[in-house]
Order: sequence, then C-alpha cells, then structure tokens
Amino acid sequence: MTDQPRVEIYTKTDCPYCEKAKDLFDSKGIEYETYNVTGDDDLFEEMVERADGRQTAPEVFIDDELIGGWDDTSALNETGELDEKLGIATEDTDEILEHRKLIIAGTGIAGLTAAIYAGRSNNEPLVIEGDEPGGQLTLTTDVANYPGFPEGIGGPELVNNMKEQATQFGAELRNGIIESVDDSSRPFRVELTNGDVYTADAVIAASGASARTLGIPGEDELMGYGLSTCATCDGAFFRGEDMLVVGGGDAAMEEATFLTKFADTVYIAHRREEFRAEDYWVDRVQEKVDDGEIEIMKNTELIEIHGSQEEGVDHVTLVENEQGHPTDRLDDPETEEFDFDVGAVFFAIGHTPNTDYLEDTGVETDDEGYLRTKGGDGGDQTETDVPGIFGAGDVVDYHYQQAVTAAGMGSKAALDADEYLEDLERADSSAEEAEPAAADD
Amino acid sequence: MTDQPRVEIYTKTDCPYCEKAKDLFDSKGIEYETYNVTGDDDLFEEMVERADGRQTAPEVFIDDELIGGWDDTSALNETGELDEKLGIATEDTDEILEHRKLIIAGTGIAGLTAAIYAGRSNNEPLVIEGDEPGGQLTLTTDVANYPGFPEGIGGPELVNNMKEQATQFGAELRNGIIESVDDSSRPFRVELTNGDVYTADAVIAASGASARTLGIPGEDELMGYGLSTCATCDGAFFRGEDMLVVGGGDAAMEEATFLTKFADTVYIAHRREEFRAEDYWVDRVQEKVDDGEIEIMKNTELIEIHGSQEEGVDHVTLVENEQGHPTDRLDDPETEEFDFDVGAVFFAIGHTPNTDYLEDTGVETDDEGYLRTKGGDGGDQTETDVPGIFGAGDVVDYHYQQAVTAAGMGSKAALDADEYLEDLERADSSAEEAEPAAADD
Repeated sequence: MTDQPRVEIYTKTDCPYCEKAKDLFDSKGIEYETYNVTGDDDLFEEMVERADGRQTAPEVFIDDELIGGWDDTSALNETGELDEKLGIATEDTDEILEHRKLIIAGTGIAGLTAAIYAGRSNNEPLVIEGDEPGGQLTLTTDVANYPGFPEGIGGPELVNNMKEQATQFGAELRNGIIESVDDSSRPFRVELTNGDVYTADAVIAASGASARTLGIPGEDELMGYGLSTCATCDGAFFRGEDMLVVGGGDAAMEEATFLTKFADTVYIAHRREEFRAEDYWVDRVQEKVDDGEIEIMKNTELIEIHGSQEEGVDHVTLVENEQGHPTDRLDDPETEEFDFDVGAVFFAIGHTPNTDYLEDTGVETDDEGYLRTKGGDGGDQTETDVPGIFGAGDVVDYHYQQAVTAAGMGSKAALDADEYLEDLERADSSAEEAEPAAADD
Repeated sequence: MTDQPRVEIYTKTDCPYCEKAKDLFDSKGIEYETYNVTGDDDLFEEMVERADGRQTAPEVFIDDELIGGWDDTSALNETGELDEKLGIATEDTDEILEHRKLIIAGTGIAGLTAAIYAGRSNNEPLVIEGDEPGGQLTLTTDVANYPGFPEGIGGPELVNNMKEQATQFGAELRNGIIESVDDSSRPFRVELTNGDVYTADAVIAASGASARTLGIPGEDELMGYGLSTCATCDGAFFRGEDMLVVGGGDAAMEEATFLTKFADTVYIAHRREEFRAEDYWVDRVQEKVDDGEIEIMKNTELIEIHGSQEEGVDHVTLVENEQGHPTDRLDDPETEEFDFDVGAVFFAIGHTPNTDYLEDTGVETDDEGYLRTKGGDGGDQTETDVPGIFGAGDVVDYHYQQAVTAAGMGSKAALDADEYLEDLERADSSAEEAEPAAADD
C-alpha cells in the first residue's frame, strides 16, 4: 500500500464518529495518520483552518483535499467516490461476486446477534456493515442496562465484543452499503452501492434507524457547525456555551445530562408537557435542574437555527404554547415566538428506519416506515411479507428500542432464517430426485 | 445467628447444584460450613459414609441430620420444613407483610432483566427467586451465544452479574416460592409457600419452564458435565463425539438434527415404536438417517448414565423391548439391557412451564401450559389476559428459548409494566380530584 494517497484524520478523545472514520479506512486496508486535537490548541486551530472553519472532529483529508466529517466521508463512500479517490474502486461489471446462504444487513446489536447465531448454525453469514458500522450503540459512551455488565459497558466496546464473537463463529463482516435487494427471483440479488453484487438464499434486514432531523431553516447549513445529532461526539467542542437539546425521550435526557459537563447551561426544548423518558433519566435531569445546570422548556418547539459555518450557531427561534405541540398552533394567539441565544444545538428526536434498499421488494412497512414482521408466538416471528427476508432490531421495533430487545430479535431472526434455509435445502435435495443430500461442510 | 443449627455442605469444584444449595442458605442469612471433596479421597469417603452411600455433591446436613442433595433440600424448602429445621419459620398469620409496586416471579434471565429495567424505572421490584434460583442457565457451564461475551461466560456467572446489576438499580431479591396470585381484587395478593403474603400493583411472571428429566442414576452428577437439556447451548462442546438424544417429540428431532452438525453419530433413544413428532421433523431425521448421520433406537429407554464430572459422560445403560416402554417390562425376558458408548447425552423430553401459582387467576395458557401474551408489534407485547400481569421468558416462549430472547422479553415486560403502573398512578391521582400529581421521587 505504498502508492495509496495520503489520508489524514483529525480526531479527538472520546469521539465515536472519529472511531467510525478510522474503522472505515481500516476496513478498506487503507493507512492513515491521525492528529488528536484534544487539549492541543495549535492543532485544533490548524484543523479549523484546513477544514474551512469547521470545528468538529473528525475531519478527513485525502492528499490534502478536505473530505469533511464522518457524514461527508460516509456519503462519498456510499457513491463509490471514496474508493475512486483512494484508487481502490472496483470495475462495475455487474458480475455476481459470490453466492452466500445468508446476508445480514447491518452491524448494530441486532445484526451482530443474528450473525453470532447464524454463525453457530453453520450458515456462514456475510454481514454488510452499512453506513453506520456498529449502529447507534457506538454513539453511547456508557450502556448501563444491557444485562450482564453490572459495571456498565461502553457502547463501542459492547459492539466490538459482539463483532469478535460473530467472526469467531464464522460470520464474515464486510464494509459496504446495500443499494438494493431484488426478490423477483431466487436466490435474492443483493447489490451494493459500490457495484458489487451478491446472491443470497436468505436476507436478514437489521439495518436499524437513523437519527431524525426537523427539516427547519438553518439545519442543513449548520449540521456539523454547531448543530449535531450526537452529544457524546460533539459536546466537548462547545465548552462554556449555552446548549439546546431538542427532544423528550431517554436519548434527550441522557444527552442533556451528559452535556452539563461542558455547557454553561443546558436547555431542553420538548414539544409536550410530559417527558417520554424512563424515570431514571427524568430523575437525573431533575437533579441537574435543581443544581441549576439544566433548564426545561416544556411545550416548546424549535423552528429556526441562526448562525454561519464560520461562527457556528448564534441563536435559535422557538415557539411555545402551554397546550403543547406549538407548531401545530402557530395561528393560536397564545402561541409565543421568541429568539433565544445558544451556542450549540443537539437533536434527540428519534429515528427513521433504514429500508430504502428494500423498496423494490414485496416487504411491507407500516406508516412510519418500520418493517412489518409476523410477530405473535411460536416460530417465524421475524418473517417479513417476503419468505426468506427477515427483520430484526430498530428497523422493525418502533417501541422498545433497547439494545437487549434488538439482540433478542437478532437471535430470533437467525433461528428463523436457519429453519427457512434448512427447508430450502431439503426442497432442493428432494428436487434432485432423492439423490443423497451432501453433508453440510 | 449464634443459636442457629449447624449446617454442613459437602461440595465439589464446578458444581452448579452446590452453588444453588449455598445460595439458598445465603439468601436465608444462614451460616454453614463447606467441605470440598474434589481431590480429597478421605473427605469423599466421609461424605459417602455420612450420606448413606450417596456419591453426589452437594450433600447437606443440619445438626448432623442428612438432608440430602439439592433436590431434597429444595423440596424441603418448598414445604416450609427447611425453615422449621433452621428455626426461622415465620408464623402463618396471613397478615400482609408488605405492599410493592411490582413483584417479579423468577430470577432467571427474563426475571433478572425485568428487574434491571424495573429498577431503573424506579419501580423497586421485589423479585421472588422461586425453586430454581437463577433459572435454567445456571445449569449451563459455558454460554457461548449470549451476545457481548466473545470468550463465553459461565451460566452462573452471567446470572450473578445480572443479579448484581438488578440490585444496584434498586431491585430486591428474596428467597421464596410463590404459592398463588389472587387477582380477584386490586392490588394483587401474592402468597408464598412459607405463608408470607405481599400485595402488588403489578406482577411479572418470569417463572420459566423446567426441563423434564428422568430421575435416573448419574443424572444429578453429570448434568452440565456431558448431560444437557439444551442441544443449541451445549452441542458444540462435544464436537466429534457420539451423542445420545432421549425423546421422541419435535424437540428431540430438532435437537438431533441440529447435533449432526457437531456429532460423529447422533443416536436417538425413544421408548416407543412411533415418534410423537410432527411428520416434518420425522422426515428431516429420516434424511439424516439415510445420510448415516443419525441412528434411531426405538423401544429403548435410558436407565443409567456413567461418567464423572472430570471426564464427562463415558457410556450409558439402555434397555430395549420391541413391545415398547421397556422400563415397564424389566422382568420380561425379552427386555435386553446393554451398555453403549457415547460422549454426551441430551434430554429432549419436554419442558413444563411453571404456572401453578397463576391457576386461580384469569391468565390464560395454551394447551401445553405456556402463558399467552399479546405479542404483535408496538407496546404491551408481554400483557397477559389479566391487566397488570405480564409474562416473559420461557414461561411464555415455547419456541426460541434462548438466554438473549428471554432477556429481550424481560426488558419488554418491565417497560410494559412501567407504563401500566404510570397509568395506574395517574388514574389514582386524578381520582384524588385533580390534586397536582407529585413528581416521582
């Protein structure tokens, strides 16, 4: 790899997206230099200057060209352009690279648990990492409620443990993003965004859900410049600022609590009166409110973010109505609109299930886009409407969304897929007119 | 506890039932002496002599009186006689000892995960251990497929981790066996076999299912040492060995088929001529028979397992009579007794869900006795037919029955129960004529 382009990554300590960026290049076998800006003001300024004023890590450069943060790098990877820049693009020949018994989409908790079980069932799964390798848990610094770890465990560490466990049992993890699944004939045809094509007898969709945004003015421009969907990643960049967290669930409470380490004051804007979060988190937040570190703005919604890429977030516009959901009541004279000074904004308003690649299949989703599975009791709970395609984790579960519930479903999906594959094998061998079936190898 | 009777326990190294016995006395606050006979021939002989020739650990003595092994001790505990012998029996006053928001029945994986989550939701659950504290997983020496532990983890260790985690978050574990739940009025009335009575606003039934065993010589000693009730858990440990599966139902066929992945040859011993399993499974087994991977021993029963905890299973003793049910025909000259070499034995003679204590409630079960829950997608998946009673783990799930699926359901049950309890609290406080609701503390 001596003639590869020069890859440089500015990182900081405790930065999940920096890890993701490094993992991505690792998975491609690309060498890179890292510069950790934590506690190094000169290096930080160098990064900001080279990154056209962007103040967030990671910042990736290829042969001195600014690629950008994780989102930019990931987007470029999705189109195959990153591989081109790195000189490792494969020809788009549309030839089938390989046939696999089972392909798993996603390496979050559900996908990895499915991989562990499928590996143990000798189905040698190919696991496609997707554009957020490790899934959402990689953004959580401390997982306290995953059963089995009384001291808690870091999200990335738990994910890495499961990766190791899955590969030990014969699962193969591969970097890439699934563009489409074709169920018009069997085996399924699975095409990646880089043009690679596989066939598979069964597919487990464990592609998770991605952080949601509001679609309000200022959002696109300021994402990565003071607006973030990951407090653990970016909180430390805004030390001493007032910060706004938008949301009312566990994630919002957790992020707000975490941000008090850095913020002058953390404000939580929530559109309703009651938080949806579990008591544990509501209590932690209440303690911080009592300490004067957090202030809660109930029945309040964010409608605009003001600032610039050079200067970051300057202030926001909020609306408030004590009946809740103020943006539904903009004409109500009781709805009050006001500007508010904050230096950073964090979205914690939920997730959108990642199902684009299944669009042309017969797999059905609900109104919110979550995969529909059979459920019920007994076997085949993870079956979708297409035999041979199974669903697990946050791409299915719009309600519980816990690491351990995702793991439970991942295990079920692998067991369901195993039964499906055994049926298939049996049907194939009886089609061969009772020729003795070859032993699994 | 100076005037408690003298309790002595002979133990061995790596002996799950010895741990259970110690845990039982620990949970009662009773002190005891242990004598580890592993590698100490004199001590072993002393134990055998005091235990009237019994060669299995544990052996429990109270004031020099032989109580017996774990089964005997547990049976005595269930009737309350153990507490009498220990001088700690409570008066059967039928007074209510305590009111709790939430009582969880069972400390297997489902119950403990429910306890972790319920603790974090400030529902301060009381967890009643039942007659198999720690549940079935305590019988598995090495859990390889619980996600998060790439090196594997011992079943008892995983259970203990979860206990620690649950108590950290405010769950209280108490030794005892639930005799009955009364749902004729609210709160529920929960009575233990020792006469203690609690009331509870909600109950999570995570009481598991107990694997059926045969009660034959060698069984207690070798359970977990080559004898197992779970092929998916333990099959891979005996790669390359000959294996014996005992049973003739779906589970036996499924386990035998699964074990062909690892076994040299899988033998199925079934006491009758015809399998009880559905054709689907019988066909699959027949294919493996045709391939030479499975051999069927019809009209055959297992009467003894030989081996040691150090070396595992060495061989078994079987009886055969072509009229079927050979153990009913031991005097029949046609009944043939013979030894047979195998390296592992799997019982697949069914599980019995533990639901006796719910008999007088409106909770419905299926034909096999498994609790019926709502299932489906969205919330309240673990609701039973009685609002406020939730079900999780192997007492519900007759199909997947994995540690991680039980954990997933336990988490769901606690989240469902929390919503139920919050609704109840809200209803109570609005019943108090719209007095402002107190914040949870």
